[in-house]
Amino acid sequence: MSLAEQVLEGNIRAAARLMRDIDDGRPQAIQELKQLYPHTGNAFIIGITGPPGAGKSTLVDQLTASFRARGKKVGVVAIDPTSPFTGGAILGDRIRMNRHSCDEGVFIRSLATRGALGGLSRSTSDVALVMDALGMDIVIIETVGVGQDEVDIVKEAHTTCVVMVPGLGDDIQAIKAGILEIGDIFVVNKADREGADRTSRELNTMLDMRNTVTDGWNPKVLKTEAQRGTGIEELTEEILSHRAFFQSSGAITDFLSNRSKRHFIAILRDTLLKNALLYMAENNDLERIATEINDRRTDPYSAVEEIISKIMLERGTV
Amino acid sequence: MSLAEQVLEGNIRAAARLMRDIDDGRPQAIQELKQLYPHTGNAFIIGITGPPGAGKSTLVDQLTASFRARGKKVGVVAIDPTSPFTGGAILGDRIRMNRHSCDEGVFIRSLATRGALGGLSRSTSDVALVMDALGMDIVIIETVGVGQDEVDIVKEAHTTCVVMVPGLGDDIQAIKAGILEIGDIFVVNKADREGADRTSRELNTMLDMRNTVTDGWNPKVLKTEAQRGTGIEELTEEILSHRAFFQSSGAITDFLSNRSKRHFIAILRDTLLKNALLYMAENNDLERIATEINDRRTDPYSAVEEIISKIMLERGTV
Repeated sequence: MSLAEQVLEGNIRAAARLMRDIDDGRPQAIQELKQLYPHTGNAFIIGITGPPGAGKSTLVDQLTASFRARGKKVGVVAIDPTSPFTGGAILGDRIRMNRHSCDEGVFIRSLATRGALGGLSRSTSDVALVMDALGMDIVIIETVGVGQDEVDIVKEAHTTCVVMVPGLGDDIQAIKAGILEIGDIFVVNKADREGADRTSRELNTMLDMRNTVTDGWNPKVLKTEAQRGTGIEELTEEILSHRAFFQSSGAITDFLSNRSKRHFIAILRDTLLKNALLYMAENNDLERIATEINDRRTDPYSAVEEIISKIMLERGTV
Repeated sequence: MSLAEQVLEGNIRAAARLMRDIDDGRPQAIQELKQLYPHTGNAFIIGITGPPGAGKSTLVDQLTASFRARGKKVGVVAIDPTSPFTGGAILGDRIRMNRHSCDEGVFIRSLATRGALGGLSRSTSDVALVMDALGMDIVIIETVGVGQDEVDIVKEAHTTCVVMVPGLGDDIQAIKAGILEIGDIFVVNKADREGADRTSRELNTMLDMRNTVTDGWNPKVLKTEAQRGTGIEELTEEILSHRAFFQSSGAITDFLSNRSKRHFIAILRDTLLKNALLYMAENNDLERIATEINDRRTDPYSAVEEIISKIMLERGTV
């Protein structure tokens, strides 16, 4: 039985193994993903994003418990800051959400922000796909809300919660503006801290002022204390309200179409580059070109034109 | 006279215009960059990274003043958190470093973290290249130290300063570990705050423990109060020490070679994808494929194989 078939039967170990194969870039993993694809599209994907220190992990832990109490299976993809040298995730699955570790209805996976080709958003969508195929009803994607890669990741989610926290520092204002438009729900976590009301008011003011075309949904600002579990029920309800709105308003059609395009383009880009680099490796072209660029005998733009012409001539293909 | 020629004569307006053309993705900009390339490689590039709220902008402002006092021309590329919808930088050049605004020896450019193809690190290296060609002796790249894109940006720099600040929150530990290996110099800014000594000690301990192969350089932890200018001279001296070490140890050779490879690969990837998308646009392939993926009639992996075969057959080229 293929890994994909095992995943479709709900085999958690097979899912974990497939995710490793995806991580390692094994060609067979693509074949498995192809098999899974027709059986996906059922999971509801929730994005949780916000600055470091906002308490996102604790909030995700509480949301997981809340959805479990409603009988839902929950997958969590946590994007951890990575050591660029070791390539591994820093926090790791081990110290995450110990209380769910014996629960078969919870599947947690940490993804490292690797420097590998392909990028984080592609890995995230592949992992979310496996969780979907595995039968997870809810997939929560947690990521730090800074950087383009992180914004791209959030675009995977049907519903995005932006988590803020009172008094985080000087340029929080900028971050707030940066993620304002991607939030369907705003959460002021650690709401017992000084300044929580002010942060909440500021967010409401900024939301009132935002002039982008919306789909008719009015994002609310909720307060939580994830550590104590305060406000989690309200947040869960609001997430489900957004989901219902998203489906009834028809906004989901455009969302799914755009997401499919992004997935396709990301895979196309990676495949084209991989093919070209494989071709170059045959002749050690990359080393030669790097030397020529360093010596200013060529420039990277001309070198790219040169190599594309060469591939056209010698191989007649991508 | 071409824009490139004007830039090489030190024309700041021409440089600003070329940067806009790069931003807008004008094909002519590539021709100008090609012309500039042989005249670049002279600027010393300093990366400043750290979490939001660490006071990076103020530190960059002070470093700029410090290098100006030494008679150096300084370019600054500030990567700002962006609104993913408006596409513009939030902080912007306007509110940055007003005190240098009348100084012809300072050139400041904010880059937005756009969603466009190509990515931030490529825009950053192109902008740094123009500043280099313009005759800037020092180019400072400032970026938030979270996310893969940001780590890639820092790889552009000869010398990287990681800026920390006391008491920023729970998962600062993770971020510290994440950027530990990319720092040549560590700065604890806002050193008058409670916990500065502890942050400094922690950093020193983590640096002692780090087991990656280093090039023989031992990163120091310095304390600054950028707001008052305290510790800036020491930081400037340490940056210059690292530069001297980098050159005398020969580590710069590998650095330059790796950087050239990265530039080449990034441009290759963008060009291959652009060519393929142009081809697809002729037949409206992208819309068709997105619909087929949505309907689960195909999957993104098979769709990529299909389109690459089609390009091969019909066009015989990338």
